[in-house]
Amino acid sequence: MKIGVDVQGGDFAPQAVLDGVKLFLTETDLAGSTTLYLFGNEEVVKSYLAENDLEKYNLVVIPTEDDVEMGESPTRAIAKKRKSSIVQGIVYHQKGEIDAFLSAGNTGALLAGVMSTVKPIAGLLRPCISSPMPKFNGTYGVLLDVGLNADCKPEYLEQFAILGSIYAREVQHVENPKVALLNIGEEPEKGNLLTKATHQLLKNNPNINFIGNLEPNHLFCEHEADVIVADGFTGNIVLKEAESIYKLIKQRKVQDDFFEIFNYENYGGTSILGIDATVLIGHGHSSPVAIKNLIIHADEIARSHVRTKFKEYFENA
Amino acid sequence: MKIGVDVQGGDFAPQAVLDGVKLFLTETDLAGSTTLYLFGNEEVVKSYLAENDLEKYNLVVIPTEDDVEMGESPTRAIAKKRKSSIVQGIVYHQKGEIDAFLSAGNTGALLAGVMSTVKPIAGLLRPCISSPMPKFNGTYGVLLDVGLNADCKPEYLEQFAILGSIYAREVQHVENPKVALLNIGEEPEKGNLLTKATHQLLKNNPNINFIGNLEPNHLFCEHEADVIVADGFTGNIVLKEAESIYKLIKQRKVQDDFFEIFNYENYGGTSILGIDATVLIGHGHSSPVAIKNLIIHADEIARSHVRTKFKEYFENA
Repeated sequence: MKIGVDVQGGDFAPQAVLDGVKLFLTETDLAGSTTLYLFGNEEVVKSYLAENDLEKYNLVVIPTEDDVEMGESPTRAIAKKRKSSIVQGIVYHQKGEIDAFLSAGNTGALLAGVMSTVKPIAGLLRPCISSPMPKFNGTYGVLLDVGLNADCKPEYLEQFAILGSIYAREVQHVENPKVALLNIGEEPEKGNLLTKATHQLLKNNPNINFIGNLEPNHLFCEHEADVIVADGFTGNIVLKEAESIYKLIKQRKVQDDFFEIFNYENYGGTSILGIDATVLIGHGHSSPVAIKNLIIHADEIARSHVRTKFKEYFENA
Repeated sequence: MKIGVDVQGGDFAPQAVLDGVKLFLTETDLAGSTTLYLFGNEEVVKSYLAENDLEKYNLVVIPTEDDVEMGESPTRAIAKKRKSSIVQGIVYHQKGEIDAFLSAGNTGALLAGVMSTVKPIAGLLRPCISSPMPKFNGTYGVLLDVGLNADCKPEYLEQFAILGSIYAREVQHVENPKVALLNIGEEPEKGNLLTKATHQLLKNNPNINFIGNLEPNHLFCEHEADVIVADGFTGNIVLKEAESIYKLIKQRKVQDDFFEIFNYENYGGTSILGIDATVLIGHGHSSPVAIKNLIIHADEIARSHVRTKFKEYFENA
């Protein structure tokens, strides 16, 4: 696999990203079969590789300039900074020179860049972004949408359920994944207009193993859903509240490794589902460990058949 | 004050409710100035009072029959079970014989009963329900709506901000309460259609001390909002996820009393705001401690000028 890494993206870039690359190369056994394409300042990247004795690994340095800043207006940045690491990464991916691209940089710019150059899968109404959601048993379900579509129609959510099911099957190797709808009551007639209508669609869709509504008071403890469906506003709210929990656990210095399931560093970020590309978004605060795990995650998705399966499903739907 | 208590409502009623009444009478100094009206099975209540030597307190027993069950259809129950504790409590409150009524019973039935007999305050578009939201410093903000209005218009949320501000001022004694809008981004242009429009209304309303959007990753740790505004769907999601956190803390046997701020027993339940009555909804699982604190909370609201202030504001708005 060829995985593109945005060396210039993130609050602690380029240092944290390069340290993450080093962890990936030296601490995983994937470095032999995967080539990293490092999009960044040539001088900085090359001297880091030399100083850390990393030149022996499968690496390609793609020189970039004109970094997109974290707070910058996304569309303007994408239009003007054509030589930036974000734009170049997307361009390389689109040309087929890399199999996946990941960035912890300006999320808006990454999304704007991807959405303006990569097509959504034919037949899909809206791409979305997904995130692992920790469960009490130490495994993760996948929650989607976590922020790409703040306003949704029931038909979008029905398709998110399909995207999530294929993702769970192809990437997480879950057979017949169980799908739940995030809602404020267990009964089908509970919820807002969106979830009430979505419940009926999911119930009647033979391609979804729908197990019903999931209330957030069961989110971490008892539920068994592999895929949790929500509109992007609600999904983002739930994701950020979970982040707040982890912060609280750290602030109170709770000594229990179990709560590390809430540490985003374990998976590094979210992936965009439903486009004809493999693009992952890292957390702005990404640490080296988070970058390492984001590369592993990208590699795993790129090696899977998830994109092909998405296309097969929606082309025939 | 005269506070009505639904002895028959709740998963562990009547035992847990009566035990909660006992805690209120014997452990607080409010029993001298407050009379409890106990709506329930006369024989059960009277023998409990005798056995526990509680007959010396200011108590009135209102005999009821035909309990509304927890899973029962709300509207049918309210229409048919006119002698039930829920219906009788509401009737007594409406006649002015009690100053507040509280129940841990069938929430739907309580709401249906209240909404069909008590008028919303003139000028208010929608009543809502509120809940305390714990903060890192050990205090609570008030979150509203937490479930009464799953689908909202921006104008509803603007009025919730007013209700919350008056509540914070009159009941929690916060001067010039800070209001935040629950949202998925800090910037005014972030969010869904509802929050984007609401942000503008809140910003331009001179009667609200609006401090901007609040993302849930700051919910427990850093924010300083006294009032947090959300539609009832999102508010309920956030409340239930917080409940899940507390369950997780308990399951993992974390020894840190700080996390007791997440224990609903501390405040017992939610209050309905914006109606010409003081009605509090307890958690279905209410323990005796939760009932005791719910009575204290009801007493506090009944003694405040919150209803008068609501009416003054909306009549003149």
